[in-house]
Amino acid sequence: MTIGAEPASDIPFLKGHGTENDFVVLPDLADELDLTPSMVAALCDRRAGIGADGILRVVSSGSATAGYFMDYRNADGSLAEMCGNGARVFGRYLVDAGVVPAGTVVIATRAGDRRLFVPESGDVTVDMGPAVVLGHEGVTVSVEGFQLAAIPVDVGNPHAVAFVDDLAAVGRLLDAPVVAPADVFPHGVNVEFVVEVGDHHLAMRVFERGVGETRSCGTGACAVFAVGRARHRASHAPESLDPSDPTEEWVIDVPGGRLRLRENEDGGVDLVGPAVLLASGLVDRDWLEGHR
Amino acid sequence: MTIGAEPASDIPFLKGHGTENDFVVLPDLADELDLTPSMVAALCDRRAGIGADGILRVVSSGSATAGYFMDYRNADGSLAEMCGNGARVFGRYLVDAGVVPAGTVVIATRAGDRRLFVPESGDVTVDMGPAVVLGHEGVTVSVEGFQLAAIPVDVGNPHAVAFVDDLAAVGRLLDAPVVAPADVFPHGVNVEFVVEVGDHHLAMRVFERGVGETRSCGTGACAVFAVGRARHRASHAPESLDPSDPTEEWVIDVPGGRLRLRENEDGGVDLVGPAVLLASGLVDRDWLEGHR
Repeated sequence: MTIGAEPASDIPFLKGHGTENDFVVLPDLADELDLTPSMVAALCDRRAGIGADGILRVVSSGSATAGYFMDYRNADGSLAEMCGNGARVFGRYLVDAGVVPAGTVVIATRAGDRRLFVPESGDVTVDMGPAVVLGHEGVTVSVEGFQLAAIPVDVGNPHAVAFVDDLAAVGRLLDAPVVAPADVFPHGVNVEFVVEVGDHHLAMRVFERGVGETRSCGTGACAVFAVGRARHRASHAPESLDPSDPTEEWVIDVPGGRLRLRENEDGGVDLVGPAVLLASGLVDRDWLEGHR
Repeated sequence: MTIGAEPASDIPFLKGHGTENDFVVLPDLADELDLTPSMVAALCDRRAGIGADGILRVVSSGSATAGYFMDYRNADGSLAEMCGNGARVFGRYLVDAGVVPAGTVVIATRAGDRRLFVPESGDVTVDMGPAVVLGHEGVTVSVEGFQLAAIPVDVGNPHAVAFVDDLAAVGRLLDAPVVAPADVFPHGVNVEFVVEVGDHHLAMRVFERGVGETRSCGTGACAVFAVGRARHRASHAPESLDPSDPTEEWVIDVPGGRLRLRENEDGGVDLVGPAVLLASGLVDRDWLEGHR
């Protein structure tokens, strides 16, 4: 590659993460970068490329409501509608690069517009929309030879949330847990295992469909929040609960860090957590084109 | 981090790999970067950092015989003496950055000076020194419930090479294979599993001690070369072999690519293979110092 020479044709990138869900950010405001699935996979390859869970391409939006479109791609090159941890990193980029001022930022995604709050520094908030608990004894999850009751949740994508006594007891999670009955989730399901840590404080592991165990999952945290809050409410006298209490914030620890969640005034879940950009540079264009 | 702003205090890096053994290269000719083990681990973290198997810090050497010292660190922050795939990437950096001209390049490592051949483009050769076969039926390796005869080899570090019929049959290699008798390798051992692919052509998987299965291992390839050649010679009539044949090159496929190996005139093993630099940029200094 060109080192210290003419870099004009190389491709700017940044590397960042939100609770260790990590991304290659590709600023491409003029929408000039024609990324094929194999180019995305090459960039995300953790040994032959830069390495990431996905790509966040930053494109100027033609939308009247959102200035920038988050073109999110999974590491395998497939398109994805939305990614909560990615949206926070995307917002952190927009503010740190001076593309938008700090504060409320609305971005366009394939799942529609999403509202962020991006302060000058520190944790970023993303409105994930509603997390709807679909049942209370709906399905079972089989893992490490035992069966767990799990609760289906719709966060735009499907989840099954299972409370356990010990997160380590579910083993290495090398293979997808078997969820039954299978026809409840015809397109597969993300599975969360959860323990109670304290008051309004949970810890979780997640097995993402088609991916495997990950360090964090924004929609998974929303699903766990929704089930945890429903359990809490079911076990407390109604008069002791104030459903509009703005302080009802839940802390959810994921393997990659800590998230905070609360319901917002629109009935969506605000997901609050770190968004870190740690390196920036140029990808060799010839190398990337070689993977077209 | 600073984006498009004053980057003078940030830290230059490159990302590269040799047969998918991947590295963060840190050019630091003036030896100003005081890297702690935790800073190395942060840089090599595949989700919270840039991600790599190790760091190659490039430092001007005070040596009369080698211009540049390869300060190689493992991903966990520990020091390492030498890394064959890393040395190729190190040489590719020196030539591509214009630090040295293409051709023969001698570098200093903790294991002593090493000779490279770095053409203007294409595969890089590194003299790995001798690979000494220590015995022919010395040890057994237990994996997936069956036992394999293995041959100990000294390549500066210890190896046990086991020929198998099928590389997939040794399973996922999630845990270190058990090598017996244990006292043959008091400091542990790297284990290679090998199949014959064709004439002078082998394929291998490697379990590196303290690391796990990796995409490639330079010393492991040298160990496999040495055993493969010894087996070949033992099974062919001596008069059919020309031990000084300069064309006696072996191809060894590793999960991350293809290596070529041959004995050089000094009795060392020349390891030939790809060395790719695909991105360059700056690491946020505040982020890195936060991991000191």
